[in-house]
Amino acid sequence: MSCSFGDKFKVTVFGQSHSEAIGVVIDGVPAGVRLDEAQIAAFLQRRAPGNAAFATQRKESDRPQIVSGVVDGVTCGAPVCALILNGDAHSKDYDALRACPRPSHADYAAFLKYGAAHDIRGGGNFSGRMTAPLCFAGALAMQLLEAKGVTVGAHIRRIGFVQDMPYDGILLDRQTLCGIKAKAFPVQNDSAGEEMCRVIEQARLQADSVGGVVECAVLGVPGGVGGPIFDSVESVISHLVFSIPGVKAVAFGNGFDCVNLRGSENNDPFCFEDGEIRTESNRHGGVLGGLTSGMPILFTAAFKPTPSIGQPQRTVNLQTGENTVLTVEGRHDPCIVPRAVPCVEAAAAIALMNLL
Amino acid sequence: MSCSFGDKFKVTVFGQSHSEAIGVVIDGVPAGVRLDEAQIAAFLQRRAPGNAAFATQRKESDRPQIVSGVVDGVTCGAPVCALILNGDAHSKDYDALRACPRPSHADYAAFLKYGAAHDIRGGGNFSGRMTAPLCFAGALAMQLLEAKGVTVGAHIRRIGFVQDMPYDGILLDRQTLCGIKAKAFPVQNDSAGEEMCRVIEQARLQADSVGGVVECAVLGVPGGVGGPIFDSVESVISHLVFSIPGVKAVAFGNGFDCVNLRGSENNDPFCFEDGEIRTESNRHGGVLGGLTSGMPILFTAAFKPTPSIGQPQRTVNLQTGENTVLTVEGRHDPCIVPRAVPCVEAAAAIALMNLL
Amino acid sequence: MSCSFGDKFKVTVFGQSHSEAIGVVIDGVPAGVRLDEAQIAAFLQRRAPGNAAFATQRKESDRPQIVSGVVDGVTCGAPVCALILNGDAHSKDYDALRACPRPSHADYAAFLKYGAAHDIRGGGNFSGRMTAPLCFAGALAMQLLEAKGVTVGAHIRRIGFVQDMPYDGILLDRQTLCGIKAKAFPVQNDSAGEEMCRVIEQARLQADSVGGVVECAVLGVPGGVGGPIFDSVESVISHLVFSIPGVKAVAFGNGFDCVNLRGSENNDPFCFEDGEIRTESNRHGGVLGGLTSGMPILFTAAFKPTPSIGQPQRTVNLQTGENTVLTVEGRHDPCIVPRAVPCVEAAAAIALMNLL
Amino acid sequence: MSCSFGDKFKVTVFGQSHSEAIGVVIDGVPAGVRLDEAQIAAFLQRRAPGNAAFATQRKESDRPQIVSGVVDGVTCGAPVCALILNGDAHSKDYDALRACPRPSHADYAAFLKYGAAHDIRGGGNFSGRMTAPLCFAGALAMQLLEAKGVTVGAHIRRIGFVQDMPYDGILLDRQTLCGIKAKAFPVQNDSAGEEMCRVIEQARLQADSVGGVVECAVLGVPGGVGGPIFDSVESVISHLVFSIPGVKAVAFGNGFDCVNLRGSENNDPFCFEDGEIRTESNRHGGVLGGLTSGMPILFTAAFKPTPSIGQPQRTVNLQTGENTVLTVEGRHDPCIVPRAVPCVEAAAAIALMNLL
Repeated sequence: MSCSFGDKFKVTVFGQSHSEAIGVVIDGVPAGVRLDEAQIAAFLQRRAPGNAAFATQRKESDRPQIVSGVVDGVTCGAPVCALILNGDAHSKDYDALRACPRPSHADYAAFLKYGAAHDIRGGGNFSGRMTAPLCFAGALAMQLLEAKGVTVGAHIRRIGFVQDMPYDGILLDRQTLCGIKAKAFPVQNDSAGEEMCRVIEQARLQADSVGGVVECAVLGVPGGVGGPIFDSVESVISHLVFSIPGVKAVAFGNGFDCVNLRGSENNDPFCFEDGEIRTESNRHGGVLGGLTSGMPILFTAAFKPTPSIGQPQRTVNLQTGENTVLTVEGRHDPCIVPRAVPCVEAAAAIALMNLL
Repeated sequence: MSCSFGDKFKVTVFGQSHSEAIGVVIDGVPAGVRLDEAQIAAFLQRRAPGNAAFATQRKESDRPQIVSGVVDGVTCGAPVCALILNGDAHSKDYDALRACPRPSHADYAAFLKYGAAHDIRGGGNFSGRMTAPLCFAGALAMQLLEAKGVTVGAHIRRIGFVQDMPYDGILLDRQTLCGIKAKAFPVQNDSAGEEMCRVIEQARLQADSVGGVVECAVLGVPGGVGGPIFDSVESVISHLVFSIPGVKAVAFGNGFDCVNLRGSENNDPFCFEDGEIRTESNRHGGVLGGLTSGMPILFTAAFKPTPSIGQPQRTVNLQTGENTVLTVEGRHDPCIVPRAVPCVEAAAAIALMNLL
Repeated sequence: MSCSFGDKFKVTVFGQSHSEAIGVVIDGVPAGVRLDEAQIAAFLQRRAPGNAAFATQRKESDRPQIVSGVVDGVTCGAPVCALILNGDAHSKDYDALRACPRPSHADYAAFLKYGAAHDIRGGGNFSGRMTAPLCFAGALAMQLLEAKGVTVGAHIRRIGFVQDMPYDGILLDRQTLCGIKAKAFPVQNDSAGEEMCRVIEQARLQADSVGGVVECAVLGVPGGVGGPIFDSVESVISHLVFSIPGVKAVAFGNGFDCVNLRGSENNDPFCFEDGEIRTESNRHGGVLGGLTSGMPILFTAAFKPTPSIGQPQRTVNLQTGENTVLTVEGRHDPCIVPRAVPCVEAAAAIALMNLL
Repeated sequence: MSCSFGDKFKVTVFGQSHSEAIGVVIDGVPAGVRLDEAQIAAFLQRRAPGNAAFATQRKESDRPQIVSGVVDGVTCGAPVCALILNGDAHSKDYDALRACPRPSHADYAAFLKYGAAHDIRGGGNFSGRMTAPLCFAGALAMQLLEAKGVTVGAHIRRIGFVQDMPYDGILLDRQTLCGIKAKAFPVQNDSAGEEMCRVIEQARLQADSVGGVVECAVLGVPGGVGGPIFDSVESVISHLVFSIPGVKAVAFGNGFDCVNLRGSENNDPFCFEDGEIRTESNRHGGVLGGLTSGMPILFTAAFKPTPSIGQPQRTVNLQTGENTVLTVEGRHDPCIVPRAVPCVEAAAAIALMNLL
């Protein structure tokens, strides 16, 4: 039972979709760091809805308000607390859902956990909106990581059946990574990106939704970071990535495809290159035995299609005890994947701040 | 930095492959429980090498010795500590590896982390052998879970290109699950199992190795268990599964395949069945919004082919600073997947003891 | 490094004396509890300055604002976050102290820890003001404890040389305890209380300060709560009580006086009374072997005289490197002990919520 | 619920007085440290019974056996596990106590916590014997601290009414501290020590026991270590010291005596001395605002007289439900204080390893 994660860089998240505010407390931020609040705000905007045709129509300022830990823009060593006020919340929209849980939503499970007191408005504390404070912590973590020469960057690897190129685990450099992050629609192949947008728009027109895959890379992490067993880099990163609503799978390096290879094919030979030790290939995704190898960390995360759709769906009525059909009015977000990209980066950044 | 996991059921693992002993301390075991030590020993045997043609040749008794927390076979409420003595360890085998790290092994990363003091013998604390204490904790957890009506069971879903049938996420029952667990080679389709054994044997004859996929199911968990964000059931289970050496991917429900479906296709409708609320399908793998839905929990884990192979491989010589070719003598385990099945069950059981 | 405490009832505190706000996040509050916000506000008022002649002159509303975890006055299961805005803060007062640390204050040590970036205004995150969020958590904890039949109450045991009667460890009942808590100046013997007020006023007139001892009792805790070693009730309570600024000693039962007795004199005989097992005396303060005995938990905490005084004091000038004399203008709080009483109750309540 | 303490230097203790073994797992020990096992054994001997006329008659080898984390006497970075086998345990001695709990012992509370399954033999996991693994961890911690220039040392401040001189909080140096530690009976004033031995012997002759006070000093800790609120040095040290069975009070600096002074008298002025910043006096015991000040850390801990005495005592019979008189045969330890000295040092050392 905990809304906190981490020891060295402890992140505590609070709030519900329609509570007065949501926010985060971050402990372990060194004193004397000048925060680039514009950069943090820009990062949160990548996650915020309402900034693209395919996003939900809820307008959220998502402007974080730092209430502690920072004096005149510089961290003072005390925990940093940031608040994001919840505006534009139509709470009445959700009363109907108390009786009829939405298929593949947290509604029913949350009812079992919290009973009638559960704050069902907007999904309460299960809302994707809770990724906003996570992203604030991630943006702060990324600033601290950049100072250590570590860069985190993700792109949309796939939406529906449309694929972007995978990152090159050997040649990928910081400049390329940052270039992709800077795009409004972060993909390597823009024509693939356009096709993805068409897929999303098509789903929207049919009151349906699509899922996708986000690929994330971390550059500049020295080798030997992490630990065996419970402190494996994969354990810590996956723990945080699975904390993002909608994630159903996480894979490092070639992931499930490693099963298609023999050991002699899957192993990554070591070699000296310009006096540095590297691996000739990076099927291991930068993690060996739970420790970083010094090669880029590479992982993918699968997001299921948003369960919120406009089509009528079969469900139960908890009050009448009968099977029924539910149609949720209002417009829905046909694909959260573009907005999920910074969330995945944030999860990776928070993980690394606790590992480094 | 921690060799411990969990709050309610805290597991602390210690030891190296060739240290005098490896072991585990388990805190949170209720007092007054009579341990079925035969069952625990049998469970550890499923993980132990030397019990099958395809296993490594190292003979390990793996007989756990309980040194605290149990009086006359009954838990007394104090932490349970179990030791497994390390016998039959040929430490000299490993001296050569100090200079030349094995490709895709932890050797090099561990050297970066610990320096020359790293216990490289048998992989030290990165050895697959460290799953033995994990399995002890898992076996104990499973006994406590069974008393709550919760059953954990895994099977070999795939080895190389050979697949077993996936579990039926709707109809799977305890009896079926236990029947599969009881097999020497745990698969649903035994002819598939025979084919898998041929694939393993073939790899062995070629001094190579193969990986595979383990699928695990957890039955009997009530709905509403887990939490949002950091306490999501997926976060906690994946954290522990990725703690098993060799795991490169973890997926819940239909995992990456969810991207092939629209929301209208991927959502699992709720329905009343015999007065109980169930879902008509189980693509969500028993977890919604980080909470259990009351349906079977289903997840898969991909194991890479064992990096230890008998073929010559390119690597570096840390002492001469040159690229070189390494051939590791001795016979190798061509496939750890069969032995990994109880490890995955143990990881799931430890996760659930901390969630329930 | 952590601003959080506890597993079952996790309290995370943030803020500095002059940050925009201070606050607390509480995880582990059950869903469906109607909060008595008036009671919480009243509890915080006992801690707030400006409510008595002897208190500091800073005006603080200390009105907590709940921003998450509560819907229509009822907890929803999500973490409860409460903010207290910082008003009436004269930040310029503190600039002089950057050069000359106040004797026996945190100024100098905080400078060593955080460097020049330390938020010295009002003592930053070392300010006694940080006990306000602690008291919010404590007030909430006490409501949950009362529902379990557990009552926490403290009184001023001593100020300077003036003593109040100690609690009767055998006869003390809930009604008596609550009666004392309800007093503006919580003592058993009001004439002793009047004398204490004279001592405080005298110190104030001399621009000096006095310390004191708070005694706290917890009634209604069943026996067997706590644990050996690190989970001893004394360890957990003392950890939290020493978290209150100014505490220099914590003692359970007869504390240091146990040294004046032989074992035969200090042991508390067990006896049946009305069919219940009790002890004839309570020198053990309700804790044996780290576990509660079922008798009232009794402990005392010593508060040093407030280091902030109006008299000139010898200190160093960090900028010139010379010894100097510092006189801090403005009026000071000559005794924090009366305000510390609810803080001690809060610490005990938070401890018990994590132990029960 | 946890038998573990700490993040940076995590100590996990297991075992019962009469289990096959007791032991400790220590995570966070850097790789490449050559352990001085003779020093560790010598330290444990200071705690071991049977090494003095006034000690219990149970013979314990207390020779720790390191089973992991150390290769050829050098730490390898993996968790260090040490076992101490339990020999010479007369388990039958304790059967009678199941019916009649010993006054001021953990027997009754442990029965409430664990029920009949509690391992009452020798006090089970509540036994003072559990300080042996704690001392192993402390001895290891002290070696690591010495390498950082930090020295921990304690002496017997008082037994019964006989007092030793308090440490000089200003002039105390490493050499003096180590000289006192090296004594068989660690006091500053040996004639006081002789008187203390007489007091102990007298208690023994009367089948009674006496308590005492241990004073501990930590030298060489730089200023600024620790944190506000939950990470205060006092919180962390007191948590660990109260984990030692028999401790009823912990005080820093002048402790409860601070109440006898005005702020103007109790404050410790800062001054430059040989270019270094010190305080003219050390009433604060080296801790200000939860942080170290750079002055010696000084604290005292009160140990109650051992509840185990040979005299008949009033108690209850849990089986008959009647009040009764219990006489525990066999010889008892009339004073644990001399053996408690290294335990207090160990607690302080473990605390500092987690704070530094």
